[in-house]
Amino acid sequence: MNSQNSNQNSNGETSKAIYERAVDVLTGGVSRNTIFRKPHPFYAASANGSFIKDIDGIERLDFANNMASLVHGHSHPAIVNAVTEQLQKGSAYTMGSEAEVLFAELLIGRSPEFEKIRFMNSGTEAVMTMIKASRAYTGKPKIAKAEGAYHGTYDYAEISQTANPSNWGDINNPNAVPVVQGTPQKVLDDVVIFPFNDIKRTIHLLDQNANQIACVLIDPVPHRIGLFPATSEFIEAIYNWTRKNNALLVFDEVVSYRVNFAGAQCSYSVKPDLTALGKIIGGGFPVGALAGKAKIMEVLDPRGTFLKHPHSGTFSANPISMTAGRVAMEMFDEQAVSNLNALAMKARKQIEEVIKIADVPMCLTGAGSMFKLHFQKHAPNTYREAYQNKETREIINELLDYLFLKEDIIMINTLACMFSTTLTQKDIDRLSEALLRGIKIMKPKIDKLV
Amino acid sequence: MNSQNSNQNSNGETSKAIYERAVDVLTGGVSRNTIFRKPHPFYAASANGSFIKDIDGIERLDFANNMASLVHGHSHPAIVNAVTEQLQKGSAYTMGSEAEVLFAELLIGRSPEFEKIRFMNSGTEAVMTMIKASRAYTGKPKIAKAEGAYHGTYDYAEISQTANPSNWGDINNPNAVPVVQGTPQKVLDDVVIFPFNDIKRTIHLLDQNANQIACVLIDPVPHRIGLFPATSEFIEAIYNWTRKNNALLVFDEVVSYRVNFAGAQCSYSVKPDLTALGKIIGGGFPVGALAGKAKIMEVLDPRGTFLKHPHSGTFSANPISMTAGRVAMEMFDEQAVSNLNALAMKARKQIEEVIKIADVPMCLTGAGSMFKLHFQKHAPNTYREAYQNKETREIINELLDYLFLKEDIIMINTLACMFSTTLTQKDIDRLSEALLRGIKIMKPKIDKLV
Repeated sequence: MNSQNSNQNSNGETSKAIYERAVDVLTGGVSRNTIFRKPHPFYAASANGSFIKDIDGIERLDFANNMASLVHGHSHPAIVNAVTEQLQKGSAYTMGSEAEVLFAELLIGRSPEFEKIRFMNSGTEAVMTMIKASRAYTGKPKIAKAEGAYHGTYDYAEISQTANPSNWGDINNPNAVPVVQGTPQKVLDDVVIFPFNDIKRTIHLLDQNANQIACVLIDPVPHRIGLFPATSEFIEAIYNWTRKNNALLVFDEVVSYRVNFAGAQCSYSVKPDLTALGKIIGGGFPVGALAGKAKIMEVLDPRGTFLKHPHSGTFSANPISMTAGRVAMEMFDEQAVSNLNALAMKARKQIEEVIKIADVPMCLTGAGSMFKLHFQKHAPNTYREAYQNKETREIINELLDYLFLKEDIIMINTLACMFSTTLTQKDIDRLSEALLRGIKIMKPKIDKLV
Repeated sequence: MNSQNSNQNSNGETSKAIYERAVDVLTGGVSRNTIFRKPHPFYAASANGSFIKDIDGIERLDFANNMASLVHGHSHPAIVNAVTEQLQKGSAYTMGSEAEVLFAELLIGRSPEFEKIRFMNSGTEAVMTMIKASRAYTGKPKIAKAEGAYHGTYDYAEISQTANPSNWGDINNPNAVPVVQGTPQKVLDDVVIFPFNDIKRTIHLLDQNANQIACVLIDPVPHRIGLFPATSEFIEAIYNWTRKNNALLVFDEVVSYRVNFAGAQCSYSVKPDLTALGKIIGGGFPVGALAGKAKIMEVLDPRGTFLKHPHSGTFSANPISMTAGRVAMEMFDEQAVSNLNALAMKARKQIEEVIKIADVPMCLTGAGSMFKLHFQKHAPNTYREAYQNKETREIINELLDYLFLKEDIIMINTLACMFSTTLTQKDIDRLSEALLRGIKIMKPKIDKLV
């Protein structure tokens, strides 16, 4: 166990007290369910590099990085300095700022498939705009998306994200399962759900809706499906289907853009028509973006005589997010991406060794600077294989609690790690040693899962 | 004309050069159509208080305040200091922060109808979450909204925002007109469009969809309809209808919250079930919020055994926006609201005097710290009355250009002003004098409009 904080109060008494105030004013005491934990969330006081200090003074090593959005850890001095300077000049105007042009130039220069870009405020907004732009361009109403994939909170994009054995239906024709109660049936009717990485079934489902589909939406490394990459064959098959059927292939790279210098898409021989971005490109500030082919992005061009997709946004392309994003992405150059991926691969190997030593039926999946632990012997290849039942969820929460409370280590609540460039070999040693201790303690329960 | 900048280059040569780079990378060269202007947008270099300096060094007096979102002008030192301090502690964590609790306490304390609140990243997200929460609570699929009202870019919320005489249909049964081409017919089928402030027709339309309506969405001072308040009778009639028909009355106060200390809603004897917030509550940083009755907000509570409306968001309640928002709203206390509204009322009276002196068929509408100029003799009461045809739009653009280029004054592109607390009597004198000169120049064209 980590000794640094061991004499301190790690029960989170102050966090508990703040949460008691929070439940009086915030529904459930939170604004993001991802930070909720039983019996209460913990509150951050300050964060620097790879470490977050909570309000009781406990410092924890952070592998969550605000749900994968901080690729240089917390309070990176270059970002803090640039934002501090911009703050003096204003945070938002009813005018343009060079900051958005500089950042657009950087991203367009980085990813060859990005011919034009437009900024917004979140990944949710980026995916929503991508779907609306696809409909505007093709004139067709439906979208197709993978069962289990998370794409933000726009109804169409979130269907079947939380599908489970009681409602997911036949794998040959998966049900469109609402995430939010009261989702209009008419929304469900316009969403085609397919099994990720399953070419035959997916093409069959797409064929059944051939004239109706505006776009096929893919996260090439979908975290909630199980954090394993789409196969080249799968992407190629879908790409070819979209070419034959006047549909668009659109990627949600809000999370996965970090995987390679030009996004996860650079691993495939075929490329998406449009890409939604968010998370790391904001340098720790709210951001979303839609990038892609100029002829499609044109639906958003206000100069046209008939503007197909009017779009604005009070805080879109605000100079704070644009400045922070540019500085963060300048620092996340080819060498930095390569080093970070190598460090994450090193961590994966060490954790695979931990699994071997502990002799538990566990495995790892991932790509680039992200990986996820699974409570099964062989790496899952589909959402249904990776699906965690209630018993598994309980063990995951127990392991997360152990890491958080006893080892002062923060992982994402799916047992995933999203690395930042501030992490070191020492940090991954600490992670693998902590995991070994935790897994050993829980081995009897883990063994019983199988 | 304003002499201060008169010797400088006001043709925006540097802005023109930046825009030439922008069009290579951003669709149409912008991320927000609101900042687009022909032949090119202007780019801000810095902004302070009521003034924005563009990249060619021209300083302009700002009545747009980033589309009504800056109620204390630009770079307010109290906000800059608080954000600068928070920056050192981090901009976002996968943990809570006391900043969100403090800000929630402030807003809950401010508006008696807010029992619980949840934060998100934009007004668009706030309205979307409000609609989804309404469906989750009532189990019904449709929403009703006013023709012409702007509520962000969620499909359901944006229907008929830009309805025009060629497509708006019979006033007794207005068409659901898509804003974005390719909007699914199924979306249009789930949106009931009613004429704002028209009780008889609205109730009739609601009655026709009685069992289907989850919520009636109202902006109590809808900017795009014409910036005049909903009448008490209208709000009461809709409120009573929702009570009888198990529907929710939900307010979009993203813009109008500034109108009174506790929002425009405090002017009515009946209150909304839910309220969407944004703009000024972010203190110049990206923000959205949903507030309202605890029993309805409960659909978002992650502690429940059956969570009806799962919701998260990477940047939701980030401590930068929460801190800036809290400081801004603390300063926007009852006295500040009252002073600002009085200054705006003074400006309205001066501009009404200008209209009289210039003897043109124009008028003003507004509420609180917002007002809008119309090219008609009598104040419009409906969207269709306030609707601007192409000829009027051209004159508006000409007057906006005159103000921007010759008087160094920025208004919102609808000819509206949204005041900030940094404005002074001197500034409104400058505005009314500039308007007098501009309107006099354009009088022949304005007279011809009628």
